[in-house]
Amino acid sequence: MGDSGRIPVGIVGASGYGGVQLVRLIQDHPNLELVYLGGDSTAGKPFSEIYPHLGHQTDLGVEAIDLEVIGNRCQAVFLSLPNGLACDMAPALLEKGCKVLDLSADYRFDNLETYEVWYGKQRTDHAIAETAVYGLPELYRDRISEAQLVGCPGCHCTASLLAISPLLKQGLITPESAIIDSKTGTSGGGRKGSIPMLLSEADQSVGAYNVARHRHTPEIEQVCSDLAGHEVLVQFTPHLIPMIRGILATVYATLRDPGLVRDDLLTIYQAFYRSSPWVKILPSGTYPQTKWALGTNLCYIGIEVDPRTDRIIVMSAIDNLMKGQASQAIQCLNIMMGWDETLGLPQLSFYP
Amino acid sequence: MGDSGRIPVGIVGASGYGGVQLVRLIQDHPNLELVYLGGDSTAGKPFSEIYPHLGHQTDLGVEAIDLEVIGNRCQAVFLSLPNGLACDMAPALLEKGCKVLDLSADYRFDNLETYEVWYGKQRTDHAIAETAVYGLPELYRDRISEAQLVGCPGCHCTASLLAISPLLKQGLITPESAIIDSKTGTSGGGRKGSIPMLLSEADQSVGAYNVARHRHTPEIEQVCSDLAGHEVLVQFTPHLIPMIRGILATVYATLRDPGLVRDDLLTIYQAFYRSSPWVKILPSGTYPQTKWALGTNLCYIGIEVDPRTDRIIVMSAIDNLMKGQASQAIQCLNIMMGWDETLGLPQLSFYP
Amino acid sequence: MGDSGRIPVGIVGASGYGGVQLVRLIQDHPNLELVYLGGDSTAGKPFSEIYPHLGHQTDLGVEAIDLEVIGNRCQAVFLSLPNGLACDMAPALLEKGCKVLDLSADYRFDNLETYEVWYGKQRTDHAIAETAVYGLPELYRDRISEAQLVGCPGCHCTASLLAISPLLKQGLITPESAIIDSKTGTSGGGRKGSIPMLLSEADQSVGAYNVARHRHTPEIEQVCSDLAGHEVLVQFTPHLIPMIRGILATVYATLRDPGLVRDDLLTIYQAFYRSSPWVKILPSGTYPQTKWALGTNLCYIGIEVDPRTDRIIVMSAIDNLMKGQASQAIQCLNIMMGWDETLGLPQLSFYP
Amino acid sequence: MGDSGRIPVGIVGASGYGGVQLVRLIQDHPNLELVYLGGDSTAGKPFSEIYPHLGHQTDLGVEAIDLEVIGNRCQAVFLSLPNGLACDMAPALLEKGCKVLDLSADYRFDNLETYEVWYGKQRTDHAIAETAVYGLPELYRDRISEAQLVGCPGCHCTASLLAISPLLKQGLITPESAIIDSKTGTSGGGRKGSIPMLLSEADQSVGAYNVARHRHTPEIEQVCSDLAGHEVLVQFTPHLIPMIRGILATVYATLRDPGLVRDDLLTIYQAFYRSSPWVKILPSGTYPQTKWALGTNLCYIGIEVDPRTDRIIVMSAIDNLMKGQASQAIQCLNIMMGWDETLGLPQLSFYP
Repeated sequence: MGDSGRIPVGIVGASGYGGVQLVRLIQDHPNLELVYLGGDSTAGKPFSEIYPHLGHQTDLGVEAIDLEVIGNRCQAVFLSLPNGLACDMAPALLEKGCKVLDLSADYRFDNLETYEVWYGKQRTDHAIAETAVYGLPELYRDRISEAQLVGCPGCHCTASLLAISPLLKQGLITPESAIIDSKTGTSGGGRKGSIPMLLSEADQSVGAYNVARHRHTPEIEQVCSDLAGHEVLVQFTPHLIPMIRGILATVYATLRDPGLVRDDLLTIYQAFYRSSPWVKILPSGTYPQTKWALGTNLCYIGIEVDPRTDRIIVMSAIDNLMKGQASQAIQCLNIMMGWDETLGLPQLSFYP
Repeated sequence: MGDSGRIPVGIVGASGYGGVQLVRLIQDHPNLELVYLGGDSTAGKPFSEIYPHLGHQTDLGVEAIDLEVIGNRCQAVFLSLPNGLACDMAPALLEKGCKVLDLSADYRFDNLETYEVWYGKQRTDHAIAETAVYGLPELYRDRISEAQLVGCPGCHCTASLLAISPLLKQGLITPESAIIDSKTGTSGGGRKGSIPMLLSEADQSVGAYNVARHRHTPEIEQVCSDLAGHEVLVQFTPHLIPMIRGILATVYATLRDPGLVRDDLLTIYQAFYRSSPWVKILPSGTYPQTKWALGTNLCYIGIEVDPRTDRIIVMSAIDNLMKGQASQAIQCLNIMMGWDETLGLPQLSFYP
Repeated sequence: MGDSGRIPVGIVGASGYGGVQLVRLIQDHPNLELVYLGGDSTAGKPFSEIYPHLGHQTDLGVEAIDLEVIGNRCQAVFLSLPNGLACDMAPALLEKGCKVLDLSADYRFDNLETYEVWYGKQRTDHAIAETAVYGLPELYRDRISEAQLVGCPGCHCTASLLAISPLLKQGLITPESAIIDSKTGTSGGGRKGSIPMLLSEADQSVGAYNVARHRHTPEIEQVCSDLAGHEVLVQFTPHLIPMIRGILATVYATLRDPGLVRDDLLTIYQAFYRSSPWVKILPSGTYPQTKWALGTNLCYIGIEVDPRTDRIIVMSAIDNLMKGQASQAIQCLNIMMGWDETLGLPQLSFYP
Repeated sequence: MGDSGRIPVGIVGASGYGGVQLVRLIQDHPNLELVYLGGDSTAGKPFSEIYPHLGHQTDLGVEAIDLEVIGNRCQAVFLSLPNGLACDMAPALLEKGCKVLDLSADYRFDNLETYEVWYGKQRTDHAIAETAVYGLPELYRDRISEAQLVGCPGCHCTASLLAISPLLKQGLITPESAIIDSKTGTSGGGRKGSIPMLLSEADQSVGAYNVARHRHTPEIEQVCSDLAGHEVLVQFTPHLIPMIRGILATVYATLRDPGLVRDDLLTIYQAFYRSSPWVKILPSGTYPQTKWALGTNLCYIGIEVDPRTDRIIVMSAIDNLMKGQASQAIQCLNIMMGWDETLGLPQLSFYP
């Protein structure tokens, strides 16, 4: 720890939406001190030129990305970059003794061939990648606690997996019946000029995208297969809806035991997440609103059973930039450091 | 016809969102003349006091609801009222020789017991209700052409049924596999003070509602069963999303023949809707945006097949207040009158 | 006229928001036939690839911009391009006998020096520019009727000038007291990747831009000075608000005669716009909502007088892409052709 | 202080938007403990039934309003009620020794006649009202520190006064030239069914309301007059824009000394607010976005001078429910208690 009694951390890719969340969260975290912001196109600028509202909070500037410098200065590093860049940086940072939390897809896959097929980049860091742990604490808390390298989950994956995991783990559904209809806001598209993400285009409209071929599919399937103990294919369809933040995943699946009723399932979910302070199972008859989770690391889950069709419908709501990205990375770091996993993370959304 | 060469029509329940659409559409229709606006709480007011932007278009006022007066003055009447009121008015209007188009649920059901269970009102007009035709022209065009009484479909039902009908009619899917995830804006909630529909509550949020028990379920099932030739249960889940108008229904179903590819399905859909000018099948790889349909009577349909899961995903987009309500009612009236079914209806949305 | 009995018209810059409005409006216009779409980056594409929802309405493709071809094929041409391009094209098109309607700033200024200062481009087409008429029909209807070249007004300018003109023309206010606070949606920023226009950035926020130096200032001042008979400076401040379309201009000015009351002003405004079918003066106590004008060529004006301060507050609402851009250009063409100025233009917004 | 070492506080009117902000803020405040929630229509309900997302944060229920109980249990009480109710409660609570912070208009006026004229209620609590201090700490910090009863400012007033105060205090403008054009979201309308605040109505639209007669006018004038040392009338016009939270006040005024340039004014503002940690003066050329302030107690101020007109334009941005209401009340309580005025209050908005 530095003089402040806080551990020094850095962010590579600080000027994007993932980065600016991390800046805010690290500023408010009692055990972390932000000592490095790295970027490419924004190198040389004060951070407050990119985000003027933070002018009173940080006088850091964005620096060019120099792995030597980062490794010397930081004890933990968040990589918040487009897919395919982290895998060129992580090895050197790990070599320098840093803990690395990658927010891209580079270290999410057990099988790099799956990554190569879906992301179109050949990988040479197989040994390193094998040490990476999938950063969903509610499922892999123990392994995260011993990891140096964490591949933080995709936003849709976080919402989907928290909704479906108890069902698969307990063998309550026929896995091939699972359908995930996910709804997200525009911030998942990042802070770059993009016509479909213009307010003029995205507002007052809803549509599906990447139907039957979204890259989060193999990631969801990897974890589902792990939980089920055999290969599972899921139907995953993301939709863009006119809001800034938030994901609602609606999961449909057929119950193996048609005798189960809603309250049985609620009990099972409550038990499954008993040690997971960030997952809140809603009371019978209450369904989650994404708004409830905005700005927090929370995941709200609501459950319904349709006795007419023997299906369960599970709805989970998160903030895509928080539990779906930045705050979940800090939750992982808390665990890697042996701290309470709630340390320094917001749990009260402002409403409305 | 009156002196204008147009037939005189009236709207009961003119001050709601369904009513104001009808006023606009009738004003622009070459064969219709608006001669009566009826309301309860707004009776006595000029219509332009309720909707000031229409002050230059109509000097009609809202009158109390007097069935005798309406029947004498109008050749066709649109009933745009809360559920359970139309069935008390339609018999008298039909008796006076009016064509009646009901926008509520009262005349949508073949089996009034289903209505009574889901809507909680006992019915005494069985003989009349038996003459009613379900007002989805793409499926029941011929019967509508001979009807005096049309029960116009629910908004979610229109989007869902146009998406799924070709599959059921041709026996391409296992019916019990059908899952409908529907997304709609706030205008479906009507023009009344309602906390969940406040911009403060509904904006920046998404959530499901009436899961496993929405009243549109039995209506969808009635038509699906009719098409399939046997009883079909569907999983229908509506979601409220932060926009004013529009519905996107995403339909998932398992193909009976896993050899079918996307282009086969596109061909089947194009053939099915060949004589339906208001349904547009999108080219391969294009998925609908609700924005494209706003202000029009159009339904845009996009199709995807997932060869990994043997499922078809069909997405349909409509304007809930137009094809999902008011303009579809006029499409029905066009057919009842023997006119071209596109007569007087908007087919170009403004964009963006 | 062509075989269709309609005059052939073309659009240069068809793929932007101005262009797509024009396509829709020309399709619905009884006397116009769309025969040419020109573009630069989109040349060679079918128009329905850019706007899939129009696939059923036009099979035109976007062509490269060839002035010879355009001039031969079209009787009237709309130039919907970034500032500084139209002045390189208009001369050749006029030479070929086309009527030219420019939607950019190139032909809005009586004094090209003002243009050169504010827009940073030197001009060589002074003789041509002198023949251009400012395309605000409510003020310059007669001159437009005889023009071959019309410089269509800026969107903020249209709303501002329709609000303030009666006051200046009649000498009712001290001109230097005029303050215009204008609020607009994102579509004015065009269909291009732009970070501040992303839904993620623009939604849930409001801010001013180009304060004390927006390019619409000299354009408003030119017309104000013309009306007042002497040079007038105005305070003009635009704000970006989270909506797609629409402008509300709130105009504050000090009345010369403190004895005037609201109803006096309403009478004056009604008289001023008696022959202007597109301007609607609202009844006493009613203020305009931009929503009322969406999709139409209308301008709604509301008036208030504050007897405590002797100020008048005038609010005007338009659709920035319609009366503020595309439909106003067609209104001008209607006048240039000697047709009724309402011909083919929408006057009923859908609501809500 | 109680066992927790925190002082016990209560909220009367807890179920509205002001109340739910206070609940969140008090939960996160190190020196406060929430011990009472009072309401009328919601009495008897658990608070988490009204706001399910808070179920994991509080198990308090809403109690009926009993002043004796409140006075015994609480050391400080926030009254978050419609206008005209607090004045019937505050006397008894003060009598019991409570500090009272009223969020309504009841205790904002030095002259109760002004209140009676604008709010239409006769008052009998003149002696008590005379002891009330206007709760804008940046202007009245010293008086607040000695107060038992604080009348917290209106939301528009906070934004307007923070923007204009330095100009009046220093005599830099002609006071009668001041025009305030204010833009706010829907949450200011509260959590009650209201047709104009429906998303269907308020989204995609902007309009002014209560022009020349909004009740915040006399409140702004009272403080302006106090600062100027003579009676000042201001022109204040609120606008409703389609967003949930936030106010932007754009203030126009004529400079007495036309020689002043932007940087002079920035220096004056920085000096004026040197001891006010919640006001941030933006650098030259940067204008505030309301989004920057969301969820925080901050006020961002940007300044422009137009040398062509000798006017200054000041823009201030706040969160209407925070600095404009709930968090400002806690800032006042911090001062009343002798604590640091930033204690426990959020200063980092999430973005975007």
